[in-house]
Amino acid sequence: MSENKKTLKVGVLNGPNLNFLGKREPDIYGSLTLDDLQKQLEEQAKNKKITLEFAQSNIEGELINIIQRWANENFDGVIFNPGGYTHTSIALRDAMSSVKMPFVEVHISNIYKREEFRQHSVTAGASVGVISGLGFFGYSAALQYLEEKNEK
Amino acid sequence: MSENKKTLKVGVLNGPNLNFLGKREPDIYGSLTLDDLQKQLEEQAKNKKITLEFAQSNIEGELINIIQRWANENFDGVIFNPGGYTHTSIALRDAMSSVKMPFVEVHISNIYKREEFRQHSVTAGASVGVISGLGFFGYSAALQYLEEKNEK
Amino acid sequence: MSENKKTLKVGVLNGPNLNFLGKREPDIYGSLTLDDLQKQLEEQAKNKKITLEFAQSNIEGELINIIQRWANENFDGVIFNPGGYTHTSIALRDAMSSVKMPFVEVHISNIYKREEFRQHSVTAGASVGVISGLGFFGYSAALQYLEEKNEK
Amino acid sequence: MSENKKTLKVGVLNGPNLNFLGKREPDIYGSLTLDDLQKQLEEQAKNKKITLEFAQSNIEGELINIIQRWANENFDGVIFNPGGYTHTSIALRDAMSSVKMPFVEVHISNIYKREEFRQHSVTAGASVGVISGLGFFGYSAALQYLEEKNEK
Amino acid sequence: MSENKKTLKVGVLNGPNLNFLGKREPDIYGSLTLDDLQKQLEEQAKNKKITLEFAQSNIEGELINIIQRWANENFDGVIFNPGGYTHTSIALRDAMSSVKMPFVEVHISNIYKREEFRQHSVTAGASVGVISGLGFFGYSAALQYLEEKNEK
Amino acid sequence: MSENKKTLKVGVLNGPNLNFLGKREPDIYGSLTLDDLQKQLEEQAKNKKITLEFAQSNIEGELINIIQRWANENFDGVIFNPGGYTHTSIALRDAMSSVKMPFVEVHISNIYKREEFRQHSVTAGASVGVISGLGFFGYSAALQYLEEKNEK
Amino acid sequence: MSENKKTLKVGVLNGPNLNFLGKREPDIYGSLTLDDLQKQLEEQAKNKKITLEFAQSNIEGELINIIQRWANENFDGVIFNPGGYTHTSIALRDAMSSVKMPFVEVHISNIYKREEFRQHSVTAGASVGVISGLGFFGYSAALQYLEEKNEK
Amino acid sequence: MSENKKTLKVGVLNGPNLNFLGKREPDIYGSLTLDDLQKQLEEQAKNKKITLEFAQSNIEGELINIIQRWANENFDGVIFNPGGYTHTSIALRDAMSSVKMPFVEVHISNIYKREEFRQHSVTAGASVGVISGLGFFGYSAALQYLEEKNEK
Amino acid sequence: MSENKKTLKVGVLNGPNLNFLGKREPDIYGSLTLDDLQKQLEEQAKNKKITLEFAQSNIEGELINIIQRWANENFDGVIFNPGGYTHTSIALRDAMSSVKMPFVEVHISNIYKREEFRQHSVTAGASVGVISGLGFFGYSAALQYLEEKNEK
Amino acid sequence: MSENKKTLKVGVLNGPNLNFLGKREPDIYGSLTLDDLQKQLEEQAKNKKITLEFAQSNIEGELINIIQRWANENFDGVIFNPGGYTHTSIALRDAMSSVKMPFVEVHISNIYKREEFRQHSVTAGASVGVISGLGFFGYSAALQYLEEKNEK
Amino acid sequence: MSENKKTLKVGVLNGPNLNFLGKREPDIYGSLTLDDLQKQLEEQAKNKKITLEFAQSNIEGELINIIQRWANENFDGVIFNPGGYTHTSIALRDAMSSVKMPFVEVHISNIYKREEFRQHSVTAGASVGVISGLGFFGYSAALQYLEEKNEK
Amino acid sequence: MSENKKTLKVGVLNGPNLNFLGKREPDIYGSLTLDDLQKQLEEQAKNKKITLEFAQSNIEGELINIIQRWANENFDGVIFNPGGYTHTSIALRDAMSSVKMPFVEVHISNIYKREEFRQHSVTAGASVGVISGLGFFGYSAALQYLEEKNEK
Repeated sequence: MSENKKTLKVGVLNGPNLNFLGKREPDIYGSLTLDDLQKQLEEQAKNKKITLEFAQSNIEGELINIIQRWANENFDGVIFNPGGYTHTSIALRDAMSSVKMPFVEVHISNIYKREEFRQHSVTAGASVGVISGLGFFGYSAALQYLEEKNEK
Repeated sequence: MSENKKTLKVGVLNGPNLNFLGKREPDIYGSLTLDDLQKQLEEQAKNKKITLEFAQSNIEGELINIIQRWANENFDGVIFNPGGYTHTSIALRDAMSSVKMPFVEVHISNIYKREEFRQHSVTAGASVGVISGLGFFGYSAALQYLEEKNEK
Repeated sequence: MSENKKTLKVGVLNGPNLNFLGKREPDIYGSLTLDDLQKQLEEQAKNKKITLEFAQSNIEGELINIIQRWANENFDGVIFNPGGYTHTSIALRDAMSSVKMPFVEVHISNIYKREEFRQHSVTAGASVGVISGLGFFGYSAALQYLEEKNEK
Repeated sequence: MSENKKTLKVGVLNGPNLNFLGKREPDIYGSLTLDDLQKQLEEQAKNKKITLEFAQSNIEGELINIIQRWANENFDGVIFNPGGYTHTSIALRDAMSSVKMPFVEVHISNIYKREEFRQHSVTAGASVGVISGLGFFGYSAALQYLEEKNEK
Repeated sequence: MSENKKTLKVGVLNGPNLNFLGKREPDIYGSLTLDDLQKQLEEQAKNKKITLEFAQSNIEGELINIIQRWANENFDGVIFNPGGYTHTSIALRDAMSSVKMPFVEVHISNIYKREEFRQHSVTAGASVGVISGLGFFGYSAALQYLEEKNEK
Repeated sequence: MSENKKTLKVGVLNGPNLNFLGKREPDIYGSLTLDDLQKQLEEQAKNKKITLEFAQSNIEGELINIIQRWANENFDGVIFNPGGYTHTSIALRDAMSSVKMPFVEVHISNIYKREEFRQHSVTAGASVGVISGLGFFGYSAALQYLEEKNEK
Repeated sequence: MSENKKTLKVGVLNGPNLNFLGKREPDIYGSLTLDDLQKQLEEQAKNKKITLEFAQSNIEGELINIIQRWANENFDGVIFNPGGYTHTSIALRDAMSSVKMPFVEVHISNIYKREEFRQHSVTAGASVGVISGLGFFGYSAALQYLEEKNEK
Repeated sequence: MSENKKTLKVGVLNGPNLNFLGKREPDIYGSLTLDDLQKQLEEQAKNKKITLEFAQSNIEGELINIIQRWANENFDGVIFNPGGYTHTSIALRDAMSSVKMPFVEVHISNIYKREEFRQHSVTAGASVGVISGLGFFGYSAALQYLEEKNEK
Repeated sequence: MSENKKTLKVGVLNGPNLNFLGKREPDIYGSLTLDDLQKQLEEQAKNKKITLEFAQSNIEGELINIIQRWANENFDGVIFNPGGYTHTSIALRDAMSSVKMPFVEVHISNIYKREEFRQHSVTAGASVGVISGLGFFGYSAALQYLEEKNEK
Repeated sequence: MSENKKTLKVGVLNGPNLNFLGKREPDIYGSLTLDDLQKQLEEQAKNKKITLEFAQSNIEGELINIIQRWANENFDGVIFNPGGYTHTSIALRDAMSSVKMPFVEVHISNIYKREEFRQHSVTAGASVGVISGLGFFGYSAALQYLEEKNEK
Repeated sequence: MSENKKTLKVGVLNGPNLNFLGKREPDIYGSLTLDDLQKQLEEQAKNKKITLEFAQSNIEGELINIIQRWANENFDGVIFNPGGYTHTSIALRDAMSSVKMPFVEVHISNIYKREEFRQHSVTAGASVGVISGLGFFGYSAALQYLEEKNEK
Repeated sequence: MSENKKTLKVGVLNGPNLNFLGKREPDIYGSLTLDDLQKQLEEQAKNKKITLEFAQSNIEGELINIIQRWANENFDGVIFNPGGYTHTSIALRDAMSSVKMPFVEVHISNIYKREEFRQHSVTAGASVGVISGLGFFGYSAALQYLEEKNEK
């Protein structure tokens, strides 16, 4: 790792209903909010050459728009929690496949302990990897992963 | 039931293509429009302490946005026809589960007499109940249900 | 609606185990009994030109017999909760299809929140519509529906 | 086990075609009849504070009627062979779930060695347990089980 | 075939809703009634050493009772239209398997042109053969078959 | 039925391997041959205004050719045993649907007692009806059926 | 075809990620862009009485909005590539069914050579026809088809 | 595109029952015949360096023979409507894969609006692309496609 | 039953995780340990000509080794709880089928009340019978069964 | 093995597209042709009392014809590669079952490494055994097997 | 987080074939070995109050033995890569459920990009969470997670 | 093939229950034992530069250990009968894929004639080829194959 390494641009993208974190079913998702997540990740990025950009949308196609914009702006990676679209959206998967930047898919709860219709991920086929069930730590680990990968 | 009962705030939410009611396949959906539905329900609410708000969107994520807004404004219940998203939208189901207000799901036609891919409802798992096949009467009965429930 | 409208004959038919309402799993079905239901519906019909007839049987074929008898007596509609036969009985569905009077299918609990084998209704394909999950209110709304339909 | 223990009331309920035991496919079901079974169980109950009641019906709904009657009479348990209704009857399962007395399900032959459509039991989900393939001994063990359980 | 051939005892058994023949969906089942069928078959049996007995029930278990009674009375064969129980009744199939007399299964309409859930016959696995789609002629041919088989 | 009724032209068409009847698995198919069948049916047609034409082929497309030829020659009906193509041939089904003459499908053995892959008939959806499991009698009954139908 | 034929209004609608054509997986989709497609189709329409309107959206519901707007403006047909929504969107299918103008569905790549979850089209059930795998030529042929159909 | 371009050899191959076009179910397939198709395509090819060869067979294996022959004669492409073999024939798919010339698969009707067993194409996996539901225009567009492809 | 009856050798074999009985999920499996089971069965065998041998292993193949060893030593029967291998192990089933001694399969909890993937038993097809859901009593009844069977 | 052993008559039958061996997808099937195969097997049979007959057809029914002819000529066995018909042809399976001579099924490539629709063999149920994936050696081993079997 | 925090005992358990890491399919699994992994994790644990224990076994039941031993020794958590047993082992899942210590499941490659039979995890239902596709980093993140969780 | 060809090292690996060959279900597997097999293969290898090593285990993971050991010792190939693990073991398949030496999979009986759950091979996807149903000859042919392959 050199002194002059370039800045890492990472997007943190949250899908439908994740703006209700903390309000929504706290026994499953915990009581922290998306703002708490943002603070925690910014804390982690502080003093490192990392630029974070945060976005959330409930609209499938807007998530695609954001992905396309970030790809055009040459982001180095995206931490992506596609929420309920994880299990059905071929269009999101296509958007992820059609750009070069890597995605780390994150789920706050362990999808294998949920209803059967949540146990398959369509988008994961277009991700580098998936972290599921480790709460906010999943986002944090995803950021570390992108950082380490960038250093190599 | 007391004289001073509080006003009941009910949202009436219609999903994709329901703005085409009356124009669309009238042999299945009848010739009345969404405006006719609104008038009929307002007539029913008149002289009762009921506030109705109507919304329609073709966009899955906007329906989620509306649900979240109504939840923030403490609506007492939602009459919801999710249209074609009924059968596929886990994101909508999550939105419904993540708020406290009750949903009564309404379908104008009897989904059990339609194509096989319309015979299952994903959203119904997050509804209090479902009324299917009774035309506009389904919305009317849903409103009554929320009213009676509120009085108890 | 004319003054001289003819009397509406409506049958209320309950299938297997519904005679145990109030005793059976009260967390799912509530603590009211079939007698309570009868009183509530008779109250609703009072002072209107509506004749109600109530029947319950645990025997699939006797339910068919009742349906055939009511059809022969020219009933104007049936409010039908087929209980556990909902999910399997092609014979009941045939009985419903083979007569002209309309059926409104009612389920006290929301079948979409129960075990998977309860999430499909075989009989619904021969009903006008289905009300599920609204408790006794479902029967009441069904009666209203038949009444309104008759007035047109 | 005290001297003054209360009498155990146990029902032995056999479903469709079991009245043909001994006549029917003896290579599968043996040559003993339902009368032989009754004698054998009465022998086992003799000199113990056990009252046995036997019933058989080919009619699904009558089996429900019997279960409801026994529940009203506070039976301590039922030994139940639902015959061909085992694999399909949600209505019977509901009847079993809607009462408090325990059921021990018995099958004379091993259902796992029969046709595929016999390898699943719908009613077992409402039984305490299932004994399959041990012939008449299954009934005898079920009676012992209910006896021992009662003593605790 | 000897002069002194013994009399052939044949049962004609019709299942649920077949007592509504002629009234029920005449585009599928024709306008003739069960009485017409009986006359037609009695005409066919006239002057031959054939005794016909007719029965119909809407109750699955009563059909089993009838089958068991006819078996005890040594009938030479049964012409059986199990109606809606065709597709689900393992109990009826067991009843048919547990007796020695042959069954010829008859369906008035062609089950392969109906809904998918009508295209499989559970009972057919316990029949000698099946005639489907040839209207009342199916019963007539079944009677001939039993007659010819008896003569050999 | 008039004296001057026109002659009935009926084709008897047998599919793959049926030319091996009598040689092939006699425990399933009996020991009679296709020649025996032809004699038996000609005997039945004798002295009636019936012309019979017999054909057999192992080749799916040739069976289609024969059907098309017979349709062009205005046959009044076809007795058709499609053999192993019964369960898979959409092309044969199309051929049957694309002509006006009626088909009675015949299977010598009861397909419901065979392997699972033999229990569905693709071609039956394009037949008037199906006779299965009654041996050669099935052909004979099919001929009677076409005769009676013609007289009406 | 008369000199005075009316102008043909055709919409060309592209779904999610198709704005990334040329950038996205060029081995599957080629290196031409949506602008190239527009030029090519305008070239084809030149000097003919054809008005073309182009639209693209990543948002499912906006595609419905566009379809509804074009229907209100009496378009004569739509050339539609629903992208990733092809395989899941019942709401889009409903939008297509609820209007009178015809749709020709186009896919640039052959969906039958892709992953299994891409091999079924939900929207095709509401299209006149589908062209798949012929690259941009598919759009061109679709335009021709609408033109020829209009002339008849 | 040079003046001296070589002649394009294209085969037009139709599968089972397509020789009955015009006679067969005209509401699905229209009233034009295979001869009409041939004339229309020859008209289209006139004055261009295109040689067309037409073939039709009801026999699966003969279609394979024709494909192999055309491959040996270095045809530049085949327009292929495999009829009812589309949905089942792995052998045809193998024949198409085993040769170098491209296939454009054509279906006159839209297979996605037909019975479920017609909605998958086995052969399409070995085609360049598929045109379905555009009637004879599908053949015409396929020819254009092969022509344009050749010019590049 | 003679005085000189030979000693009955019975193996009691427990599969994976059953050594954790008492520690593991006591709400499902109770708080008694495998040692308690052994004492209880030895108590039952005392003063009878029964030799009991106990074994437990977490390793699928070692369970097979034990079965083979006991078969070589001519055991008269095995009481077998295959634990988690019940639902998947074809190799264990083969081991059971390949020896002559009878197996009585025992499950402490009722597998029909557990997750779906536990509701089928692969090994049961090679057992004489199965006892499920009766706790330790299941082992005791299995021993009685082998004893009674031996006396005959 | 005696000196005077009778001559072994073995048929080598290849199904659809195998006449294109060497031309077709050489990375899967190798570059050798059917002629090479014939030479290799004749070399192997030389100086042994073995008569080989070779046949190939693309037509399913002709393969049946050949099998029937060889059966009539009392062949001692058939080495059979059914090509693409392997996975679908019930008619071929019937032909194989209806004759007494044994079949050894051979596939040049390993069907378990191919597309899913190639991983099941319908015909194998009527073969003695199957050799898959060993190239031409599979035919050679099949011949050896028939030879050794004959000597016993 | 206190100075006196207790030492964290973490097990790192690798299942079948993972001892071949580095040798096995390096394009999927990379070229590093299990020793490299151990060094990397020990480096990470250095100077922290963490004790690491490493184990690997190819034997399903030995993995259960190790899990049971570590549970008896009160480990604080296990990082577990169940290899090929991930997708089938109910016995391993039971072992994980029957102990109190938490499991973090790790897969080196992204299982959603592999064969279909690798896309479901049976063991994940008994894990806290799953990290898939991030290579050795997955183990490292799992260790961090257990550390952070312990500090709370 | 040179005079100085190197010695061929071949492992013969048998899975669960194959040590019971000769004892186990002789109507399926014959009466010869694993020792007989070893003698027969050693006879075949005699006087050739072939070294054979034999191993058998009932334990899935030990089979993996053996495969890894032989791979480390540079065996030239393995003849492998995975017994009951054939149909379920992804771990064994992984072990086979992770080494370079080729496997020829052998099954003594024809798996296509057995129960449905035996008709698929998981391990075959990692084998060169499969020989099924030819008894011990399958092992012999596999050895020949490896020999011939080595000579090339």
